[in-house]
This record gives sequence, structure tokens and C-alpha cells, in this order.
Amino acid sequence: MIKIGLDYYPEQWDEDFLPKDVEHMKKSGVKIVRLGEFAWSRIEKKEGEFDFGWLDRAVEEFGKAGIEVMLSVPTNTPPRWLFRKHPEIIKVGRGGGREQIGIRGHRCLNSQVLMEYADKITKQIVERYNASENVIGYQIDNEIEANWCGCETCNKLFREYLQGKYKDIDELNDIYGNQVWSGDFVDFEDVTTPPAYQNAWLNPAYMMDYARFAAKSATDYCEKIAELIRKYSTKEVLVTTNTWFPEHLPDYYKLYKNLDFVGYDNYPTTDVSNMASHAFHLDLMRGIKQDSFWIMEGLSGAPGSWGPMGETPMPGMIKGYALQAIAHGADTVLNFRYRTAKKGAEMFWNGLIGHDNVIGRRYEEFTDLIDCIKTFEHLGISDSKVVSEAAILYNVEDEMAFKLQHQSDGMYYLKSHMAWHRAFTRFGVGVDVVNGREDFMKKGKNYKILVAPCLYIYDEVTEKLLHEFVENGGTLILTPRSGVKDKHNNCLMKELPSWVRDLAGVKVKECDSIGNKQQKVLLLDEMWRKHLSDINISKPTDFDYIVSTQWCDILEVETAETLAVYASKFYDGEPAVTVNSYGNGRVFYVGTYFDDVGYESLLMSVLGKHDLKAIEAYKDGREIKGTNMYTILPEGIEVTKRVAGDRVITFIFNDAPVRQTFKYKGNEYDLQPFEMMVIGKL
Amino acid sequence: MIKIGLDYYPEQWDEDFLPKDVEHMKKSGVKIVRLGEFAWSRIEKKEGEFDFGWLDRAVEEFGKAGIEVMLSVPTNTPPRWLFRKHPEIIKVGRGGGREQIGIRGHRCLNSQVLMEYADKITKQIVERYNASENVIGYQIDNEIEANWCGCETCNKLFREYLQGKYKDIDELNDIYGNQVWSGDFVDFEDVTTPPAYQNAWLNPAYMMDYARFAAKSATDYCEKIAELIRKYSTKEVLVTTNTWFPEHLPDYYKLYKNLDFVGYDNYPTTDVSNMASHAFHLDLMRGIKQDSFWIMEGLSGAPGSWGPMGETPMPGMIKGYALQAIAHGADTVLNFRYRTAKKGAEMFWNGLIGHDNVIGRRYEEFTDLIDCIKTFEHLGISDSKVVSEAAILYNVEDEMAFKLQHQSDGMYYLKSHMAWHRAFTRFGVGVDVVNGREDFMKKGKNYKILVAPCLYIYDEVTEKLLHEFVENGGTLILTPRSGVKDKHNNCLMKELPSWVRDLAGVKVKECDSIGNKQQKVLLLDEMWRKHLSDINISKPTDFDYIVSTQWCDILEVETAETLAVYASKFYDGEPAVTVNSYGNGRVFYVGTYFDDVGYESLLMSVLGKHDLKAIEAYKDGREIKGTNMYTILPEGIEVTKRVAGDRVITFIFNDAPVRQTFKYKGNEYDLQPFEMMVIGKL
Amino acid sequence: MIKIGLDYYPEQWDEDFLPKDVEHMKKSGVKIVRLGEFAWSRIEKKEGEFDFGWLDRAVEEFGKAGIEVMLSVPTNTPPRWLFRKHPEIIKVGRGGGREQIGIRGHRCLNSQVLMEYADKITKQIVERYNASENVIGYQIDNEIEANWCGCETCNKLFREYLQGKYKDIDELNDIYGNQVWSGDFVDFEDVTTPPAYQNAWLNPAYMMDYARFAAKSATDYCEKIAELIRKYSTKEVLVTTNTWFPEHLPDYYKLYKNLDFVGYDNYPTTDVSNMASHAFHLDLMRGIKQDSFWIMEGLSGAPGSWGPMGETPMPGMIKGYALQAIAHGADTVLNFRYRTAKKGAEMFWNGLIGHDNVIGRRYEEFTDLIDCIKTFEHLGISDSKVVSEAAILYNVEDEMAFKLQHQSDGMYYLKSHMAWHRAFTRFGVGVDVVNGREDFMKKGKNYKILVAPCLYIYDEVTEKLLHEFVENGGTLILTPRSGVKDKHNNCLMKELPSWVRDLAGVKVKECDSIGNKQQKVLLLDEMWRKHLSDINISKPTDFDYIVSTQWCDILEVETAETLAVYASKFYDGEPAVTVNSYGNGRVFYVGTYFDDVGYESLLMSVLGKHDLKAIEAYKDGREIKGTNMYTILPEGIEVTKRVAGDRVITFIFNDAPVRQTFKYKGNEYDLQPFEMMVIGKL
Repeated sequence: MIKIGLDYYPEQWDEDFLPKDVEHMKKSGVKIVRLGEFAWSRIEKKEGEFDFGWLDRAVEEFGKAGIEVMLSVPTNTPPRWLFRKHPEIIKVGRGGGREQIGIRGHRCLNSQVLMEYADKITKQIVERYNASENVIGYQIDNEIEANWCGCETCNKLFREYLQGKYKDIDELNDIYGNQVWSGDFVDFEDVTTPPAYQNAWLNPAYMMDYARFAAKSATDYCEKIAELIRKYSTKEVLVTTNTWFPEHLPDYYKLYKNLDFVGYDNYPTTDVSNMASHAFHLDLMRGIKQDSFWIMEGLSGAPGSWGPMGETPMPGMIKGYALQAIAHGADTVLNFRYRTAKKGAEMFWNGLIGHDNVIGRRYEEFTDLIDCIKTFEHLGISDSKVVSEAAILYNVEDEMAFKLQHQSDGMYYLKSHMAWHRAFTRFGVGVDVVNGREDFMKKGKNYKILVAPCLYIYDEVTEKLLHEFVENGGTLILTPRSGVKDKHNNCLMKELPSWVRDLAGVKVKECDSIGNKQQKVLLLDEMWRKHLSDINISKPTDFDYIVSTQWCDILEVETAETLAVYASKFYDGEPAVTVNSYGNGRVFYVGTYFDDVGYESLLMSVLGKHDLKAIEAYKDGREIKGTNMYTILPEGIEVTKRVAGDRVITFIFNDAPVRQTFKYKGNEYDLQPFEMMVIGKL
Repeated sequence: MIKIGLDYYPEQWDEDFLPKDVEHMKKSGVKIVRLGEFAWSRIEKKEGEFDFGWLDRAVEEFGKAGIEVMLSVPTNTPPRWLFRKHPEIIKVGRGGGREQIGIRGHRCLNSQVLMEYADKITKQIVERYNASENVIGYQIDNEIEANWCGCETCNKLFREYLQGKYKDIDELNDIYGNQVWSGDFVDFEDVTTPPAYQNAWLNPAYMMDYARFAAKSATDYCEKIAELIRKYSTKEVLVTTNTWFPEHLPDYYKLYKNLDFVGYDNYPTTDVSNMASHAFHLDLMRGIKQDSFWIMEGLSGAPGSWGPMGETPMPGMIKGYALQAIAHGADTVLNFRYRTAKKGAEMFWNGLIGHDNVIGRRYEEFTDLIDCIKTFEHLGISDSKVVSEAAILYNVEDEMAFKLQHQSDGMYYLKSHMAWHRAFTRFGVGVDVVNGREDFMKKGKNYKILVAPCLYIYDEVTEKLLHEFVENGGTLILTPRSGVKDKHNNCLMKELPSWVRDLAGVKVKECDSIGNKQQKVLLLDEMWRKHLSDINISKPTDFDYIVSTQWCDILEVETAETLAVYASKFYDGEPAVTVNSYGNGRVFYVGTYFDDVGYESLLMSVLGKHDLKAIEAYKDGREIKGTNMYTILPEGIEVTKRVAGDRVITFIFNDAPVRQTFKYKGNEYDLQPFEMMVIGKL
Repeated sequence: MIKIGLDYYPEQWDEDFLPKDVEHMKKSGVKIVRLGEFAWSRIEKKEGEFDFGWLDRAVEEFGKAGIEVMLSVPTNTPPRWLFRKHPEIIKVGRGGGREQIGIRGHRCLNSQVLMEYADKITKQIVERYNASENVIGYQIDNEIEANWCGCETCNKLFREYLQGKYKDIDELNDIYGNQVWSGDFVDFEDVTTPPAYQNAWLNPAYMMDYARFAAKSATDYCEKIAELIRKYSTKEVLVTTNTWFPEHLPDYYKLYKNLDFVGYDNYPTTDVSNMASHAFHLDLMRGIKQDSFWIMEGLSGAPGSWGPMGETPMPGMIKGYALQAIAHGADTVLNFRYRTAKKGAEMFWNGLIGHDNVIGRRYEEFTDLIDCIKTFEHLGISDSKVVSEAAILYNVEDEMAFKLQHQSDGMYYLKSHMAWHRAFTRFGVGVDVVNGREDFMKKGKNYKILVAPCLYIYDEVTEKLLHEFVENGGTLILTPRSGVKDKHNNCLMKELPSWVRDLAGVKVKECDSIGNKQQKVLLLDEMWRKHLSDINISKPTDFDYIVSTQWCDILEVETAETLAVYASKFYDGEPAVTVNSYGNGRVFYVGTYFDDVGYESLLMSVLGKHDLKAIEAYKDGREIKGTNMYTILPEGIEVTKRVAGDRVITFIFNDAPVRQTFKYKGNEYDLQPFEMMVIGKL
């Protein structure tokens, strides 16, 4: 069953609010709430003195209303008495000092002292609510990031981590290349966490080890708390945490390995003049466990508090973004939050109801969402899963490494991921975002196309999987900065793209980091025709030159054919895009960063070859740029599918602030801004 | 008598400069000088060893020349021997460490040690010059800001301040809402001054208390020093301090409560391509004590030193800005400074005379200013006061709170204050800027129009005053972000504009923080005609749509009528501006931020209703935008009035870098850039 | 002999690389390598335990290949064991704490402990390689900057420096003007290095003393190490260091005084859309010792690592910039580096060979460079010196002082230096950049034109030299901000341009710092004609108005004539450019900052008067802006000359990313991007 719920903070309101609020939620059709995320001090006001009265009442009221409860292990905000007794649990931040108290997320996840207290509070909470039937599970902490902390414990554990990884200090010095600047550590005692955490002058292999260690600290913490929850629980409970995309990346795949499902905090921008591809992030979240996930916090009002307030969500956004999440694999959506806080630093991060406690447009749209869910429940959506024919590889270590060493002005790791995702979307093709470090085909997946951008750091699993994939007839798309690094984040002494060179059938003669400047790329006529012949269309004439930016790999074909060449600078005429036959498959190497039209053109060719069902979109989509050669879906229109057995449920979403009319598979559609159509048979 | 004077630093020049400089000033007609502002180390080179020789000579020379002297209590710059002996008096700044020595303003005003030494130096100075007839008063310190300091004394006093304010720590925790993030203080010992002073992650109620405490520290300091001066003085002396608009706001009204008059450091920009409404600031300064004030430092040359130098003042600026200050209520104007410093960090903040000590254009303009004053002294200006028929409310706590939580991109507290001020100016209407926290009508004021922008933090005095004002027939103008907060800086759980909702006759259904994006507002024809009927003009046709930015309150009329509606986004057609009848008055609610034309259009209607004398300006001002419906004064033309008994002195100033020709009350005027006309009868 | 070489790091590669790499270099014609720059930890892994095996092998291999070796004293990167034993040698940086370890350049050059260890390692290295014939010299440290450090030793030495300079603390207080803000030091113990190093609020005289002290620390360090090298060496060796243009300027002239030659790290931008006049910097480097110099590190690949990677060098750049350096006086060019590092923070600062160790375009261009050198060796270039007829004065103290007090938005010290340099270049006139603090005519120089921009800080040597120069018939060009400061960095109490006022025959009535705004300057017809009459051309008509920015000195002519006047603002019509006859010479005062056309117009006049040989360029250069009045070389074309006896070798370089065709001295030239022509007879 698809459940719609809310994040609720009984501890922030006078007691008489509770019954009225619960009654109201019940009436609206709310199925589930999350409680107690930051409430440690309300539960344990002084060490060992527990006050559960308020939470008991809340759990009970919700129970009576038939509303399920996710409780929380509130270690994101330890109480002040604990910080005062044990200041050593405060995170040591960028400046080298302890972070200020009074905020959140300022505890060190590696602290043993924190773990002792976390154990106690977990025991208290879980044992207390074992008997509460409507308590179905727990969220651990909040928006856990990699634990970039410089405290003594972290220093000690980081040293031990390195001692476990390297035979001795000589090996570590050698692998880091510390001799380059006479930076050889004398012994492991010499090693510290990075002095200012991230710095272009620090050794990249060392920083990579630290990034891994800090991510592992987050994983370890989560695992321990999960274990405690399960230990103290006398029934089956759901255990998870909630996630966003922070500066210091955790390893999502490891973080959630032993958790029951992925929880995502989904805050698409409310600025419609600058909409990002948040669908990509939903697909990435689904891919973490290749399974359904939850929205733990969903957009409900204007963001604010950490800066000036943003625009209020347009009508349709609150409902539409919840439905979009469902279309991309969410089974439960909790909106953040029922009522906007009246106190505390977060008072301008707006919830469904304003400070005035008056039910208005936003809450009404939320109830409309709940009603809407009911209208398509009969389609059997609840046990359905998203099925995609294409996938994009995501490697968390590659993103970590990109953050440590910026490759080119304006170029960041997810840039091409999101560009390819947009291109697939224009053709109505659903995409999985999968972890390149494990068997992404294992769950019976049958991808025909795989985009593997920026295979930056070597991995033998990825290497094996990609070769198998292509040998078995898959189409693989590669991009610049592949094969650059070994596992230590040092440069491989191989011609790029090194360990995927045989797949690509090209080598990179030279690179040109053009940043935000523009290069031109010319599609070669003959090649183009050949590869487009399957779908019987001719080369578009009005964008012979595709604009590219950021990076240009100057290619030398070995076994590949050239599809496009650069058209300016000293490598005018040299290959920019190639295709190679390998086993039963083929491999595209796209040596630069295109604008959207470029990716769409290329994908048209790829899709044509595979005759995906989605290809039909061409035939009745709208025309592009006055040509009649091919047509694709309007920008912002997303088509996704959830499948259960032989049931296919199609979701057509207008992720745009304007009404759009278009054809898809022979039918005409007319969707309002952020409107979702759910179709059982198509 | 209007006095023109200079800031002078005898301690910075060789002894032989003094007689020549004094002679020169005397010849120029200088009436008063300020001395000794930073001269502690020259007076007390070593602890207890006083050298007043240089200052005696200066006081005497000026006395002989018939020039009055304002001395200073130089605690802005304690000498190094004192810092060395008592490093605890150094302010603790943003980074958490003591500020560097060698600068200024780096002492903690809460330091008891500083107060002891301040007492001694004050005693020495005041007792020494009791006998000097030309010493007429004292300036305390320099440009005192709220004392944002994190030293041990401040921590202790801040704790005591909170202990005095709250019953116990539980009350404080409850009011702050510390439970939101488990940030409950265990006891008052837990409380510190804010770790990094200002941070979006810190609790707004706590920060507001700190901002008040820091402002109070400045007030307390000033009061104590004023008391000392008066104690040691054997004659009536003037006691004041000088003020500007710093990041950390003092409470101007409390700061000056026990001082004799307001001293303002008046530095309008010299960049004529980006002129700000500095007249607003002059009116605010006059409003602090609702009385005449002094310019303690007036623009005299290009600013510099803290950054690249700026442009040199255009001819007319030095004279014009002094006259403008007088028109707005200044009785004494001291120009900063006689001669530009040749040493020290401030050497490129230019005075009237350059480093070369040659009398040039700027000093000549200054003497021209003095001569000019004489030409209208016969009009009886010296005992006259500025009288205005309109007022704008300023609440220092609202500005403090706006600084703590930025509401919208590009929106700051004074933005609408200054916009309304500009609009009044275009109609030739003088404006008072008054403190909303005390009876702004008390001094026999008879305002017909009152603009009360951003009544953000609740205050019972303001509430009562505004209701009385409207009941008695006044016209009140309200704006967004009114009624948002309670006294603790938490959000009120009321429909906005909460405590002025009855006045406005509207409620705010929803807010949209549009930042620097643009919304359109449509003036409603019928409403417009009705409200403009008194003045028998029709709606202007060429700006039906007014551009608005930053913030949109979406209104629901209760007893009000709609004057204008939004014309885009999802609230297209919903009320943006309303008018409500209340008692004998009426209340406009302007739910968004307009461009200048918008404010002018609205004000035309308001002014028309009240048939202010100033309204006559319409009839003979210049035409606007090709319409012949109404006309207003050219941009930059300011008309102000000073009144003494039945004498009215009118000031007409061209605050623009271009010559302007215009009609006003039937006469034609032709003013050069920055030219002032002073008219005795009109 | 012109030598081309490489920077090479044997310690960064497995042992088996060495023989192959050396063999390859030998085959390419490499004559010299620099080794061991950062290799302290590889030489002395633990205190007193030396491992020279790897370096012995390298020196020997290079010796066998006939390749000379520059070794290094690697104190830029002391090993960690030394930092651990003596943390006091770590530099204390901006934040007030020790800099992080693991980077480079983080040692305090004033540390006595560092000096002890530097002595030991220098002894070890020099004595070891006394017998190696191919070891020809040593580089000290790396890119030494002024030693801006706040450690205890620096504090102590800075105090001693001041005690040596000033009679007592009273004199220091008086000279600094510490009384301005009561900042008088009690005694020398009170003085510290600047708390945050550079701050607009700190005293300019104090900061200037510190800047000088920090520069002297760098000089002293270099001198001591040079002395040690010479002490331990049993043969004649070359001793130098390598230099760039850092934020904290050393005094280049003093730094190199006792070194054998100047070493420059030459990294022109690879961004052809934003090419700077790097030829100016080459001329400045040559001017340091008024002699030939070395390129210690030459551009070899895309820059990177400290930020995003930049563009890869265009074909021709690597070769062209090496040849350009030779044309400007370099005798030896070492390219940085043979192969790009695969480990360490600098791995994306690209060398001639990439990570893949494949010889590609860039290395091929490098071998092409070596071959090219051979083709003009017969012209006798190796004992030739650059000879110029014009010079630009550079005063390192003026640049230091400009950095301490920013004069105007967008205005920096070298701005007019480089603008004048560009103008000379357009006329084919070679320029020396010379130290204004010593006799720039001493080496038999015979400059006819001297540009002396921003003579900011008074110097009696400069004063005398400039007066002599003009008396003897030279043409001097002066600019704003001349004569402003005394030697202490206080303002002179004189009418500007004070000590060059008699030369200029003008005084500055007022200054206007216009920042990035624009002023117009009108060339006066009669004056213009008179001064251009020698070259029989009329005033150009299409740029009567020259655009000027940043700063306007409003001039009053005394003995000078006016050449151009301002044409807007209140000083419309007042002199902007003047010329004065003085002795047998004449002096131009250019009171503002022009665009390039302005400088070219003015220089045309000056050049005409002197009938320089270069003037012939006018007659056959290309036309400008459609006029036929005069013509100059295309932008980017540089003509320089090296002379040995009566041999003149002319270098014509196309420092532009496009092919250019032009006439010069009657011949037609057609140069590819970055192509150099070397002509023995012309």
C-alpha cells in the first residue's frame, strides 16, 4: 500500500494541540507519522531521568487514530548536559575547534562516549514502545554525512584504519607518494586527520583514504545503532535513516546495506526559473538498494532559515512531487512537516500549515494528494517495482575523488550523469541509477543501454561487469576522465581510457580542459547516416555543430569508428565521439561534454539501434527545432513505469511550471503544471 | 545660531601648525571644533602621567580665536600600556579571540577595568577644562556600536541579564524553544554569548536577547560616562556621542535618552551614479530625540583607507550636504576634517585640506558654506524646528531581528522605509522618522499620514498608538512582515498581520518570497478612481502594471476594499493592496515591494485624500511620463520646512548631480547640482 | 651556448625509469637538468641517515649522457621528522597558527634551527657532488617569497630590526604616527609581527617596515645558504634560486645580489582569450641583474592541481615561449617537467609527458625547440645581450606599498607598467625594466625614453638619477601617485608630484579616484601637431577622445604645456597630460590611466621626437582603424634584439594565437601562432 504521511513534532507544541492535530490528520487520511527526531532532551532531560509522557500520549493518540509511527533515535542532537559532561563528543570542524553547541549534527559519530549514551537512549525508546502496535520502526539520527571530524578519537581511529590497510608506514608513504614533497610520515603516530579537512595542497591519496574513512564512520555508526534497535526490539521493526546529498558524501550503498530501506529527504527547488533534474536523484535513491524507498521528508512549503526564504511552492508542486517520487519507486511519502515551527532556527522552513495554524492551500493540496492515491490504488501499485531498460552507473568513490580534485571549471561529477538522464527522459525511457561497484544486473535486470560516466577510479568489479555487459550485447556509453586513477587515487600510468580502452577501441591522445569555454563538434555525415539507418531518419540539418564545454578528449581510433569530430582549435578534425563493436555489443566513447541537444542526438542513434519500445515516442512526439526528422517528448515530461507481474502502470508527469500538450504512443495528452497521469493499461 | 565647525587633531601635527591653523579657521568663520577623540595616549602616555600641554595650548588658542571646543572622552582607543596591563579589556571578536591591537573600537564596553580607567581620564579632562570658557561639552567615545563581544565579562553579564529576565532556566528553555534541537540549557552557567556571534543555525530568540543585551551594554556605557562628565563638571556642558549605521545596531533611542543631543556622522556617497536617500538617515537622526541634532563629522573629501579610495566630492556636495543636514534639523555641522592625516591607517580618508596643506577647492567650498549660512541667519533659523505632516515608523528591534533572519533575497528592513521616504519627497512632503516604541505624537505632532513598515516584533505600545492614530482620523500604511513575531522573536500563532489585522481589514492567506524576481501588480480601475476622486484626476494609463519584488502577501479582504491585485503566478487576481476604514481613519495594506512609480502612485491617492498643503505641488510640478494627470517634483529635489512660531523657512535642495529646472507652488526654480535655496516667506 | 633542459624528479619514479629517461633526454638533445628540489626526505630519511644512492645514480647517468645537473638545497620541504622534532620551524600563517604540514614552503626562513639543519644537508650534498663534473650548480629552496611569518623568532627578529632602525620607541611611535589612535608602543617588547598580516586597519608605516623585514628575511636566508654552498664547494659552481610573482614580494634586486644569475619560473597563461603581457615579466627578470637569466621552470602542459585544470598549451606555445624567453635574455631554459607526477598534490600540473608515459605532441614540440636552437646558434647568440633604447622603472617598495593600501578600484601597481610595455611593443621598441633604486644607466645603458610610473615612495637615489637623466636630454614619462609618500610610507606634506614636480612642471590640484568608471580625455590640436611635427603626421581624427579610468590627477601647469585635457566631470577642460622642457630633456606627465590606444598615441609623439630607429616601423606597419596617418605592428608581434659586439640578432615573435602577416622595416612577414623568426642581419 502506498502510504502518505507527515513529520510531526509533538514536543514543539502545547499539549492541547496533540488531540486536535491527530484528529485532523486522521480525517485527512494520513497513514503514518515520523516522531522524535531531535527530541533527546525532551525524553532525557537530565542524565538517567526519562520523561516519556508526552511521547506516550502521542504514540497512543496516533494509535487510536490508526496512524502508524516511525520513531527516531535522536542522536543528531545530544542534549547539552551530555555535551557539558563529555565535550569530547562534539565534532571538531574545519577551523580545528569544536563546533558550536545549540545547532544539530555536531556530534562525532566515532565517539565511544556518544555510543554508550546512544545505547542507553535507544534501549529506553525501543523497549518502551515494543508493546505499541502502531510503532513500526525507527529512523537513526538525521541526514547522516560522512563524519569529517578532527577529534582525538577520529585521529586515533583513522590511524588504526590506515594501519589495518597498509603493511607499514613505508608502504603508506610509498603509495601516497609522500616523497614528492618530503612529506613521508615517520610512523603512524605522525598521521592526523586532514588539518583543514580539504585543501588542494594536501595529498590526494591521503585525502581519499580520509574520505573513505569518514564515510565508513557513518556506516559503522548506523550499523551499530541498527543492531541495538533490533536487539532491544521484541518485534519486527523497520530500521532506516534519512539521506540527502551533502558536501561530505557517505557511501550510500554501504550505509543502507543492513538497513531495511532507503529514506530520502526530497526538496526539489521551488524556483521554477531554475529547475534541476531531481528525478535523477530519485532514481539514484531507488538504485541504492535496487528497491522501493521512502520519502522521509517531502517538500511542503517555502524553504528558508539558512538563508533568505525561497518562493512558496507553485500549486501542484506538493502533490506532483510526491506522485513523481512514487512513480520513481517511493512507496511511502512523509511530508515535512505538518505545521511550521514557531521557535528555533528552522522556523522559516515552511511546513504544510503556517505559523497561524490555519489550513490553507498547501495542506489542501496534501489532502488532495491522499485522495488522488486512492484513485489509482486499484491498479495494484503497492507491490509494483520500477523497471527500466537503461541504466547510469554511479560510483560514490568517483564522486568523492572529483570533489577532492576539481577537474575543470564548471565540471562536476554528476554533470554528465544528469545530462544523460535528461536525454533519456526526453525519449520516454526510464533509467536506473546503479552502483558500479556491485553486480547491477543481479536482480534480473536486463539493461540494453548503460551509461558509465567518469569511470575515474579503477575497480576490478566494475571492469569485469562492463566487459560482460558489452560482450553480451549491451550498449555502453563512456565519457572523459575514465581510467584516470588507480584505487589509491594516484594516476594510472596507462594511456586513457586505460582499463576500458579495449571496450572503447580508442585511446586519448591528449586532453584539453576548456572549462566554461565552448568547443564545436561536427557530426560526421556518413557515420551518422549509418547509425541512424535503423530508424530510417536522416541527419538533422540545423545543428550540425554541437556545442561542447568543460573537457575535450582528443581521440585516436584503434578499432572504433568516428562518429563526430572537433571543429575548432588545434585538434580540428580529430575524433570526439566514436563507436566500437566489442563482443556482441558496442561501446560509444563521448569525449566531451555536450549541451542537451548533443546528448539527445546521440541517444537517438543509440536508442534506434536497440529498437527500444520507447523509441515509438519519436513517431508522435512533438517536432524539434522546425525539422521533421525526429520528435521527442517536451522538456519536463517524464514517463516512468512500475511493474508487478504482468501489470504495467505508466506514470506521465509534467515536471514543468506550464501546461503542456503532446502526443505519446498515439494518444494526445494535456497536462497542467506538475500534473501526473497514472495509466493502468497502455 | 547655526554653527559650522571642524574636527581637528592637534596631536597629529607639529606644534607650529596650531597657531596658523587656528588663525586660518578663525578667518574662515569657523565657530566650533571637536578635539581629542582618540588622544588618550597623548594625554596619558604612561599610567597616571598626564600631559595636557598640547591640549591646553589648543583650547587656549581656539578660545582666543572665539572658537568653541567640544572635547572627547577618548575611550574608543585605550592606550597600549592599558591593553598590556589589562588585556581583558580587549573585545573578543567573531573568531573567538581578542581583536588585534593598533586599531580602534576594540575595547569591551562592559569591562569594569575599562570603566575604572575611563573614570580617571574623564576626571582629568573634565576637571582640567572646567575653567575653560570655550569648552562647551564632550563627545563620549566614537561611533559606539552594540557591544558584540564574547569576553568573560560579557558572558557573565549576559547570563545575569538573562537571569534577570527569566524566572528560571526552564522558562528560558521554553521561551527559546530549545527543545526543538535538544538544546536546553542545564542551568544559566550553560549559557554563553553566541559562539560565532551571528549564525543562521543559532536560535533566533537567543540571538535577539543577545542583540538587545549588546545594545544595552552600549547604552549603559554611555550613561555611565555621561554621569561622570556631569559629576566632574562644574558648569553646564553638552554631553553626546556620535553615531552612524553599523552592522551591530545600538538602540539609538535609549543610547541618546540621557544625552543632550544626537551627533551624526554624515557621509553620503560621492558616487553620483549610485546615490542613496541619505535624507532618510537625517530624518531618522532628528527623530531620535525629535529635536535638532549635530553633524559631528561631515563629508569633506574622497573616502578611502578601508578600501580603494572613492571619487572626490563633486563641487557643491560639501556645501550642499551641510545645508541639507540643516534643512533636516541640524543646528551644528562639523566637517571631518580640517586637514587629511599624513600618518596612520586613515590617511586616505580625505579632509577639507589635502596632505599638501594647500587650501583648495574643497576648503573654499567650506568657507563658502559659512558665508552662505550668514545670508539666511536673519530668517531666524536658529531656534526653528523641522515640522512634518507625515511620519515613518522605525523600530530598532525590528531591524535587529531582520538582520538575524534574512526574509528574502534583496529585502532588508530599511528598504521600504527609504522607498516611502523617496515617494514623500517627490511630493514635496517632509517626513519625520519616529520611534514606534514610544508616543510619537507626544511633542504636539499632528501627523496625517503614518507609514509603519514591517511591524515585525510585537509591541503593546506600538499597538495602542497605531490604533489611536487611526481612530483619530489618521491614515496608516502597513507593509508585509507585520505581526510576524512575538516579543521573544518567536513566530506568533496568528493569522497575519495579527495584531494590526483589525486595522488593515485583511488577512494574509499566504506569502511568496520572490526575492529579486518580479511580480506584476494591477491597479483596479474603479477603486483607483474612487480614491483619487478628491483630487479630480483620473487613473494614469501608462503604468497600469506596477513592478513589484521581494515579497508578496496574498491577501484576503475582510472589511477592506481591494485597490490593486497581483497579475501573474498562481495568485493572479488576488489582492495586493487594500484600504480599510477604521474609526475616523483609514489603513492601507501594501502587500508587496514596489518600484518607485508604484509608491508614488499610491501616495498620490493618500495625499489627495488628506488634501495636504503639499498637494499643491501636483499642480505645477513637472509632468511625468507624458501624462498630464499629475505631476511631481523632479527626482532629487527636496523641500523641507523649519518652523519657529509663525515663521516658516522653506529649504529647496537639488540633491542631484545635474542642474534642474522645475515649478513649485507657482514659482519657477533653476538649481545647480547640490544647490540649496532658503526662502523665508513662501 | 643556449641550453635547453628539463626539471626531473628521479625520486618519484621506480629505479628502472632512470636509464630509459636519461637515454631519451640525451637523444632529444637535452643539455641540462635540475634535480632534487624537494627531495630532503629521500636524502635524509631519518636524522643523520643519508641515502644518496638514488641521486648518485641519477647524477652519474646524466653525466654519462653528457647532461649537466643543477642540484638543489631542498629546504622548501623539510622532512616530517624535522617538523616533529622542531615544530617551531613551521611558519605561522594568517590565522595565527602554524601552517599545516604535508604541503610545501611552510618553513620559517628565520628559524635558526632550520638553518642548522639546512647547513648539514647543504654540506652533505655539496661535498658529495664536488667530484661530479657534470654537477654545475645549485638552486636554493624554491620560489622564495617574503617570509610573512608570525612565529616567536620572527617576532624577536622583527623587534631587533626595528631597534636597529629607530633610535628608541619614541622615535618609532612618532614616525608611525601611533598617537593617531593612541597606539603608541610602550617599548619594543610591545611590538609584534602584524596580527593578521595585512589589514586595512593597521598602520601603513608599521606594515611597510614589516614588508621590508619579511623581504629581508628571504634575502638573508638565500645569502646564508649561498655562502654555505660556496664554502663546501671545492669548485666554481653556479648558485641561484627560482622566482615568480607571489603575493608577498621579496626584494628581487637584493635577493639576487650575491647569486650568480636570476632563475625565473615562466608560466604564461594557456588561455588565449585572456593573454597577459608576460614579455613584461621577462624584461623585469632580465633587469634584476641587468644580465642574462635562466628559465628554471618553463610551461610544458596544462596547469592544474590548485584549482581546476586549465587549457592545454596550443601548438607552438611550448616552443614559442621558450624562444621568446631567449629573445628577452634567457640563456638556459628548463621545462617543467619531463613527466607529469603520478602521485602527490601536483599530479595535474602537466609536464611534457603525460601520466601514460607516451611521447606526444608536447614533448615533440620540445624536441623541435632544441632542433630550432641549433639553426640559429651560428648567429652567435650565446654571448649576446639584450639591448634596449627605452626603459620602465620598477620599484619593489612601491609595489609593496600599493599592496598595503589599495589606491583605487581596479588600479594596481603594475597596471601602467604593463600598459606602457604593450605600447612600446607595438612600435617594435625593446624595453628594459630597471630598478629605480640603483643607477640604471651604470652598465653603459643609453636609454632615450624612460617611463617611471607611480613613483610612490620617496627615494633620493631615484630622485637624483631622474634629474640627471632628463638634464642629459632624456625623455621621462611620469604618472599619477608619484611623490605621495616619504620613506616611512607616510604622506609627504608637499604638493604632488612633490619631488618630481620641477621635472614635470606641473602640480596636482586635486585627485579623483574614479575606479572602474570612465573619464574622457581630449587631445589638444595645436599641442598635438607641434609634438608630432617631427614625424610629419597629423593628429588622428577618429579617437579624439581617449577613454581613461582609475585615477585622474587634475593638473595645474607651471612651466609645462598642456597636451590633453579632461572632457567631463567638474574638471572638464583641465589638463590631463602635459609636457615640460627640463635641461636638455623633456618630461611628460600623464595624469590618468588610458586604454591602449591612448598610450600608443602618446608614445607615437614621444618616439617621433627622438627619432628612434624603431620609428621606421611606422612607415610600413599595418594601418590602424582605417586611418592612414600612422601604422604600428599588429598586436602580439614582438621585436627584440640581442647584441654581441657589432652583431645584432633580431627576434620577431608572434605572441598571438592566430597567424599574422605584416610589414616590418620594408620586409613582409607571415608568422604562424607563436612562431619566432631569428634574423642575423637586418
